[in-house]
Amino acid sequence: MIISKRATNMQESPIRKLAGIANKTKKQGIHVYHLNIGQPDIPTPEIFYKNINDFTGKVLEYGPSDGFPELKEAMVNYFSRYNIQLEPADIIITCGGSEAILFAFSAIADAGDEIIVPEPFYTNYNGYATLANLTISPVPTKAEEGFHLPPMPEIEKKINPKTRAIMINSPNNPTGTVFTRDEIIGLGELARKYNLFLVADEVYKEFTYDGEKHFSILELEGIEDRVIVVDSISKRYSACGARVGALISRNKDITQSALKFGQARLCPPSLGQIGAIGTYQLPPDYFKSTQAEYQQRRDVLFDILTSNKDVVLQKPKGAFYIMAKLPVDDSDNFAKWMLGEFNVNGETVMVAPGAGFYSTPGKGKQELRIAYVLGIDKLKKAGEIILKAIEAYS
Amino acid sequence: MIISKRATNMQESPIRKLAGIANKTKKQGIHVYHLNIGQPDIPTPEIFYKNINDFTGKVLEYGPSDGFPELKEAMVNYFSRYNIQLEPADIIITCGGSEAILFAFSAIADAGDEIIVPEPFYTNYNGYATLANLTISPVPTKAEEGFHLPPMPEIEKKINPKTRAIMINSPNNPTGTVFTRDEIIGLGELARKYNLFLVADEVYKEFTYDGEKHFSILELEGIEDRVIVVDSISKRYSACGARVGALISRNKDITQSALKFGQARLCPPSLGQIGAIGTYQLPPDYFKSTQAEYQQRRDVLFDILTSNKDVVLQKPKGAFYIMAKLPVDDSDNFAKWMLGEFNVNGETVMVAPGAGFYSTPGKGKQELRIAYVLGIDKLKKAGEIILKAIEAYS
Repeated sequence: MIISKRATNMQESPIRKLAGIANKTKKQGIHVYHLNIGQPDIPTPEIFYKNINDFTGKVLEYGPSDGFPELKEAMVNYFSRYNIQLEPADIIITCGGSEAILFAFSAIADAGDEIIVPEPFYTNYNGYATLANLTISPVPTKAEEGFHLPPMPEIEKKINPKTRAIMINSPNNPTGTVFTRDEIIGLGELARKYNLFLVADEVYKEFTYDGEKHFSILELEGIEDRVIVVDSISKRYSACGARVGALISRNKDITQSALKFGQARLCPPSLGQIGAIGTYQLPPDYFKSTQAEYQQRRDVLFDILTSNKDVVLQKPKGAFYIMAKLPVDDSDNFAKWMLGEFNVNGETVMVAPGAGFYSTPGKGKQELRIAYVLGIDKLKKAGEIILKAIEAYS
Repeated sequence: MIISKRATNMQESPIRKLAGIANKTKKQGIHVYHLNIGQPDIPTPEIFYKNINDFTGKVLEYGPSDGFPELKEAMVNYFSRYNIQLEPADIIITCGGSEAILFAFSAIADAGDEIIVPEPFYTNYNGYATLANLTISPVPTKAEEGFHLPPMPEIEKKINPKTRAIMINSPNNPTGTVFTRDEIIGLGELARKYNLFLVADEVYKEFTYDGEKHFSILELEGIEDRVIVVDSISKRYSACGARVGALISRNKDITQSALKFGQARLCPPSLGQIGAIGTYQLPPDYFKSTQAEYQQRRDVLFDILTSNKDVVLQKPKGAFYIMAKLPVDDSDNFAKWMLGEFNVNGETVMVAPGAGFYSTPGKGKQELRIAYVLGIDKLKKAGEIILKAIEAYS
């Protein structure tokens, strides 16, 4: 039986594809530090579980296709803290940020259309582009420049009649880069000039360090009808398994389209939403300790990795990832080797090879994405193991 | 801003599109009986909530992309009761049966390909076909014939080089029809002869009446690699809001494709899965009382509706829907009018107009889908209101 081209073309997740090797390694009694996946170790807030345990509905019914009104209200309040004024109708609750990506792609582009994305980018954009029959047109950025955008004319060159949108992710997964206000304003101007949508995945909004502030595309003035934000509670409130995200836009055609896609899948998960209503009511200082913890982790991992002078790495300002360029010929092989054959005192590390975060063949072959999602002590050990692995591999 | 063609072409859900009128009616103090949506009133099993309340994980983490192994094991046991032998690897847990439809469509067909479906069909197949850029090629069935399949040569005529699969839903939504063993064997033979996949949505498996037994396409021999089942706990265990479904296939290319699509959206909802593990461990007789209750409801509604000799309706054998052909010119207008302008002692009924369950323009215009998801007393009242509305409308 021949399966579809899109299924054949679908890449395996670089974050999860080494899971088989990890299982073998664990069976040998070797401890694996998981720095491959953006799974925070921060406890999910108690209010999340409390809300769910307090739920007394006899029947776990379908909810509204656009999500529970109480959750949308809570999100409107949350955004108003950032001086972003939204209406509940601007928000469509989705099954994780992932579904918001699918809905955004599907609402703005047809088969064969193009979306410009700075590269490297969150690997699952590739997956959803394949699923939705779109082409991602990558704009190269460099480890040496902290993965910031190239000059606008470089991006402009990528625009053609098939281009429907520019999409960014800031704070960025996999690089940790926080795009500056000027960079985002520049992209907004391109969107206006070339009649494009501007999509931003802002799920790491709170995860910025050294006093850096995240600038949202929802703050851009004059192009409100072009702006679509992908949002999620997964990282914000450490509730990845809840599968609660959102598509946010002030363009009614976009939210109506997302609602129609949403009706086809009936509703987002009810229990996760019931929990999320509680988390969105947490006070703003909830994020302070998390932010301080991650900043410290970043510093620890950065210092360990850059103690090897051949590692190329600018200190990232956000999210909880480092995209490091290593003195290895093939980071895919390196990651497999480290996980499957290398250990220090019975411990090793799982990371995500860089190439899967690129759509340009051959790029990212020296890079690794390392998620600093473990506490300082574990992270120090894991960082030292990576350092020793680099030495042993060379 | 121009949105995509697929967003423009996406139909509104016929099940939910009258929600605005319903809200207005309710604000006038009129009670609305909701027979528009397949939302059972059967309590979600206590074990579902208990499992979730007993969950003690500090962090609600991402689960495996293919679902929790414990849930897959529980499903393997459940299917073995029906003499259907599966491996855990044959099952990919999805975010509701809806996502299993999307994954199945995407794995077997590319943009422009066709899938043959007996018409009327579950409305959201239209939605997912639009999203995935496929064409549904409808095979007409008739109210007068209880919506059973036409002779196989009629279906054969629809097969062309773009055809990738035949898809059925049995027991059927919206018609309640249970396709016979012979009908399903016939479709299996077509699939083999023309090298097609055979997809079946079997989420109403347990909902069969008058001793009728559901015959699963998983029981077909010799075409195991062509068979894909869409499954869900939503109706089986009255847990629609949990969003837990499954794609089931013994074809490894299909399950591998679904896994890759699944990796792009990371994982299905963890809490719903934790609850579902419990429900799948319920004893087989759990379904007995539900089955008896629905059979009684069907009889009550059938008797009321057919007391009007102009209503065309064969007694359906499964699911919890009746697709009735009424003596009205336009069931869309009739449904809107009944909901918005008609009431009996301050009560009215919301139903789903038939046309949305067809892809052939102009078809289903005299039909209504009525879900018998309320208890006997309420259902009697609602049925009488529909009967009076038909008289008043004519």
